Amino acid sequence: MKRLYSILIGLTAALCAFGQPATSTRLVAEQIMRNNPPRLYFKPETMTPDSFPRWQAQMSEAMARLMKHPQAQAAPPKLESSQRKEGYTLERWLSFPLDSVVVPFYVMIPDSLSGFSALCIPGFGQTKERLISENGQGWQLMKEGVIAVVVDNPSCGELNDGGVNDYVVSSRFLLEMGWSWLGLASWQDKVILDWMKTDPRIDANNIIVSGFSLGTEPLMVLGLLDPTIKAFVYNDFLCRTRERALTMNKRDANGHRPYPNNLEHLIPGFFLEFDFPDIVAALAPRPVICTEGGMDRDFRIVAQAFELAGAPDNFESHHYPKYADPANRVQLEEMPNGVDRDEFFRLANVDPPSHGYKIPLVSAWLKKLNK
Amino acid sequence: MKRLYSILIGLTAALCAFGQPATSTRLVAEQIMRNNPPRLYFKPETMTPDSFPRWQAQMSEAMARLMKHPQAQAAPPKLESSQRKEGYTLERWLSFPLDSVVVPFYVMIPDSLSGFSALCIPGFGQTKERLISENGQGWQLMKEGVIAVVVDNPSCGELNDGGVNDYVVSSRFLLEMGWSWLGLASWQDKVILDWMKTDPRIDANNIIVSGFSLGTEPLMVLGLLDPTIKAFVYNDFLCRTRERALTMNKRDANGHRPYPNNLEHLIPGFFLEFDFPDIVAALAPRPVICTEGGMDRDFRIVAQAFELAGAPDNFESHHYPKYADPANRVQLEEMPNGVDRDEFFRLANVDPPSHGYKIPLVSAWLKKLNK
Repeated sequence: MKRLYSILIGLTAALCAFGQPATSTRLVAEQIMRNNPPRLYFKPETMTPDSFPRWQAQMSEAMARLMKHPQAQAAPPKLESSQRKEGYTLERWLSFPLDSVVVPFYVMIPDSLSGFSALCIPGFGQTKERLISENGQGWQLMKEGVIAVVVDNPSCGELNDGGVNDYVVSSRFLLEMGWSWLGLASWQDKVILDWMKTDPRIDANNIIVSGFSLGTEPLMVLGLLDPTIKAFVYNDFLCRTRERALTMNKRDANGHRPYPNNLEHLIPGFFLEFDFPDIVAALAPRPVICTEGGMDRDFRIVAQAFELAGAPDNFESHHYPKYADPANRVQLEEMPNGVDRDEFFRLANVDPPSHGYKIPLVSAWLKKLNK
Repeated sequence: MKRLYSILIGLTAALCAFGQPATSTRLVAEQIMRNNPPRLYFKPETMTPDSFPRWQAQMSEAMARLMKHPQAQAAPPKLESSQRKEGYTLERWLSFPLDSVVVPFYVMIPDSLSGFSALCIPGFGQTKERLISENGQGWQLMKEGVIAVVVDNPSCGELNDGGVNDYVVSSRFLLEMGWSWLGLASWQDKVILDWMKTDPRIDANNIIVSGFSLGTEPLMVLGLLDPTIKAFVYNDFLCRTRERALTMNKRDANGHRPYPNNLEHLIPGFFLEFDFPDIVAALAPRPVICTEGGMDRDFRIVAQAFELAGAPDNFESHHYPKYADPANRVQLEEMPNGVDRDEFFRLANVDPPSHGYKIPLVSAWLKKLNK
């Protein structure tokens, strides 16, 4: 028995080495992923100014299908309380995205208004209370004269499970029911975004969506689903999440090769449709600022989308300060296989200790946007 | 800010206590699950002998939709080697369920044949090599005169990732692509089952599917998809997996409430269609033996399906020896909320240390089946 077994192990290893049959389920699943590139993968070389809007419509339809937002209209949010603060008013609102569900959010209205409003979406483990505190994302935008509407992500802050940020378990429940964490997150945000357009203090034509880290995912959803959003602050590195799954797979000390992220990032079938840079490309010609770099390869492709859409100046990308000088950046057309998290970040020009909301860049961009 | 926050926490707690709006994403997800019972939930009181086959057809269609098996015909398996053993022949075969994928399996042909063959599916962490070893599931069935066809589950044994049983990560890859671990597992098994029907030594009208523990899940899939299977050995306790998710949620020392099982059990949307007892009910009138008990409530319902199908004697259920005496069993119509794993098992009449293949019960059942 052992002999038979070892013969086949040897045979399989030999076959795999030649790209031949695999036994490992992991290899099989990776092969399925490699052999099925996203249907709507953005290929600038095959796109024309005429075909670009058709592709954008397909992107939007695919996202709507994946997100499975409820058909029913949500009840309008209600003001719960209002407080005067130095230089701004802080309001607390309750929204009702589903029957028997209440999702609180904050609105910060500066005394001096720029004309812009922003839906501010936090990162993993961040609460909306952190975002409205001094130097938080919402507070910083408010200081720029932006009406900042600040939300929690599901499974965190007031939406957590009795003090536990239970992203993975609540995601699992939603997935069992054929939904997803991002489906719920983006629906909650959409209900608040739709309310923003009705509030008399907010200019519905000048609404920005600003996402930090995990918050860039609901941003991308809203961006494809709602063409009325004016502009986007994408405050994370721009990642090909599919490529990351296929390459960030170095074995740890136990031989285990973990998946690069947790269950809140799983939207079944997402990878069949598109990857993150495709979505950012599809936001053209609406202004987008990417504040935390990534691979120049991806920025070049997104920039081509903005050219196709006739608005090359509307896409602005910045690298981490550590990688601002092109000489410090790694230039790759493909991420190599078998890297660990640190190596992946290095090759993608990511400086994790500097991950944070880049208000100076956003401030300058807002001034440009205002013109 | 803190004051506002604590007011709402208090308000929310009060509302939740009255079944009113919830903020917690976990509670929201649970509400979605509770408010959307399975579409095909088996209700004996609303079923007639006429409507029963229609319901079975719907069950089968739903399972086919969830499993997303490839349309393409798989290449036929190939014999790799054959060895004489004492009282039987052991063959090693290779099957090719997908392009560039090889899945090895064993066939044990006893010298003394009962006329039955069985597809033997292992439990979590079990290899096919264990099943063909002395006192393994396949070996025990072979000793009963059954031609035992013994497979690996994906992510384990020869199908693992370089020595690591990577169920969770390989499941995640498949889910990203819109598939699932069980979709792949049942497809691999189906290819081998279809081959069994063509092998001249196997009587296609007398094929049994035997699943241990995790292996009962592919068994249920094959059962709904393939009406030619003769009979089923369901060697695990019969569980309402949805009820388990909703009740086995006691907080651990860190306040965390884990999900009861891992990602290989996730089939997005499964819970919208049916639960395990519904599937077993839909196997009627084909003989089923459940060897490791569960809740009498569920056995009563499954028994009613076999009555409706005109074959009340074809369903046989046995409790763990510890719970064989009805006086020792817990009788519940509903599992209470907030139990931990040990309490759940106790209330479901499960004796985890005695979890194993129950060959004496299967042996007696085979003799009955033979008549």
